[in-house]
Amino acid sequence: MNKIKAAIVGYGNIGRFVLESLQEAPDFEIAGVVRRNADNNPAELNSYKVVTDIHELGKIDVAILCTPTREVEKHAEVLLSEGVNTVDSFDIHSGIADLRNRLNAIAQKNNSVAIISAGWDPGSDSVVRALLQAAAPKGLTYTNFGPGMSMGHTVCVKSKEGVKNALSMTIPLGTGIHRRMVYVELEDGYKLEDVAHAVKEDPYFANDETHVMQVASVDEVKDMGHGVNMVRKGVSGKTQNQRFEFNMSINNPALTAQILVSAARATMRQRPGAYTLIEIPVIDLLAGDKEELIRHLV
Amino acid sequence: MNKIKAAIVGYGNIGRFVLESLQEAPDFEIAGVVRRNADNNPAELNSYKVVTDIHELGKIDVAILCTPTREVEKHAEVLLSEGVNTVDSFDIHSGIADLRNRLNAIAQKNNSVAIISAGWDPGSDSVVRALLQAAAPKGLTYTNFGPGMSMGHTVCVKSKEGVKNALSMTIPLGTGIHRRMVYVELEDGYKLEDVAHAVKEDPYFANDETHVMQVASVDEVKDMGHGVNMVRKGVSGKTQNQRFEFNMSINNPALTAQILVSAARATMRQRPGAYTLIEIPVIDLLAGDKEELIRHLV
Repeated sequence: MNKIKAAIVGYGNIGRFVLESLQEAPDFEIAGVVRRNADNNPAELNSYKVVTDIHELGKIDVAILCTPTREVEKHAEVLLSEGVNTVDSFDIHSGIADLRNRLNAIAQKNNSVAIISAGWDPGSDSVVRALLQAAAPKGLTYTNFGPGMSMGHTVCVKSKEGVKNALSMTIPLGTGIHRRMVYVELEDGYKLEDVAHAVKEDPYFANDETHVMQVASVDEVKDMGHGVNMVRKGVSGKTQNQRFEFNMSINNPALTAQILVSAARATMRQRPGAYTLIEIPVIDLLAGDKEELIRHLV
Repeated sequence: MNKIKAAIVGYGNIGRFVLESLQEAPDFEIAGVVRRNADNNPAELNSYKVVTDIHELGKIDVAILCTPTREVEKHAEVLLSEGVNTVDSFDIHSGIADLRNRLNAIAQKNNSVAIISAGWDPGSDSVVRALLQAAAPKGLTYTNFGPGMSMGHTVCVKSKEGVKNALSMTIPLGTGIHRRMVYVELEDGYKLEDVAHAVKEDPYFANDETHVMQVASVDEVKDMGHGVNMVRKGVSGKTQNQRFEFNMSINNPALTAQILVSAARATMRQRPGAYTLIEIPVIDLLAGDKEELIRHLV
């Protein structure tokens, strides 16, 4: 079997779990890890190439982008132009359709494939949302998140001046309404009220009830468990009150990483272009023989 | 907008709900209904063509097969050979992969598309099962059905000597184990214990805990609600105890019909061939502008 040569770009929380998912996947070969600084690597990287420029890894099939969300596009542009497939978990919902269109043009021109926003929300949750709309076209779906740490929101808080370390927890209030509980460690000389103001003004937080609190140690309150409760009540044809519910209780970066790796596999099975997860057949995410999967899963 | 011309083939429980789903869909035109006998039609068919031979309906894009499951293949073969797309809710799990392969050859040769087993199980449940395997590749998924009426088991009980009318209810006991609660109206002169013995010996029931009870009227205890509780506990990468749950409480034929209609739409968007639901992008099931759907659902 020709294994899929994958590179991990960025080695934070997600990158570490992507490494584990790739190690467990039967059909992948780990080409290496791209970091801003290739020295001082953790022990688990000892047997892998760690580089600062992805071109040092030779020919790769797919790059799994584990950078902060706002850096995804610049990496994807370069790699797709060079004919390398990319996957990412870009998570700014309002920017997804435009990112897809921009990357789609580049990928089609250069015979490469991008699967974007391939985490769990956006990502696997999006597939469930679309499926429930097909099952009951009229009605309302509520996606309730948490309680759990939001990676995107946490990175956003960390980027604010004066923040040494941060944790943004998402608390579900039902019907898709959420509270943001933000815990920060401050640098010396910064005031909580200034940081809180900067956080609450950011588009990531502006629409939600947000509380910013100072703690002595963010590490001591951090837990990477997360959850989803998605509910749809809708109409199939003319039949009312069709009810659907999807729940998860999961380790957040582990699930994001696993879906990135499943999507990386799926890039090898699409025609050139950029796709969100709802635009690709679910079977393409899975390892193994297609006919066996159909016998087993359908 | 060019509407999709759809024919309903068979007009039992599912066919009636398919008519309603088509009436509610913005992008379909109802070409007509095919019945074994085109006389004595119910009032809701007054404004539609009812025929015994589908060719009397002129050019159609897709035929929605609402016949008994064992008659699906012969209808699909003829229609696909004539370049007409088909959808069905073929529900004999062990026969799906082979049916797909046989219809795939015919469809590819004749430039048509079949989407098979497009109900809720097999069907939308299959999409969820495949997605959960992509999210946590190692682990166990249990699909628990009910409480609800099993069509196949009910037909089996009705075939036993001395049974005038019957209802077989599926009761979930967890971890994919089910109890069968069978309600029978008996013909004069037959004993419950003999009928119960015949039912419990049938392969349909032999492996499940089965209780057979006599009732005065089966109609009075019949309800077409059904349910599913699907549970997966699995491993994402190397992270254990990832938990997922999918629940539905639904009108059974209404949901089957809606998914058939959504799949009928999707046939217009696939390359020639036969597909199960896990092989097509979920977005193709949905009406409306693709980019709008991505903005709304991803």
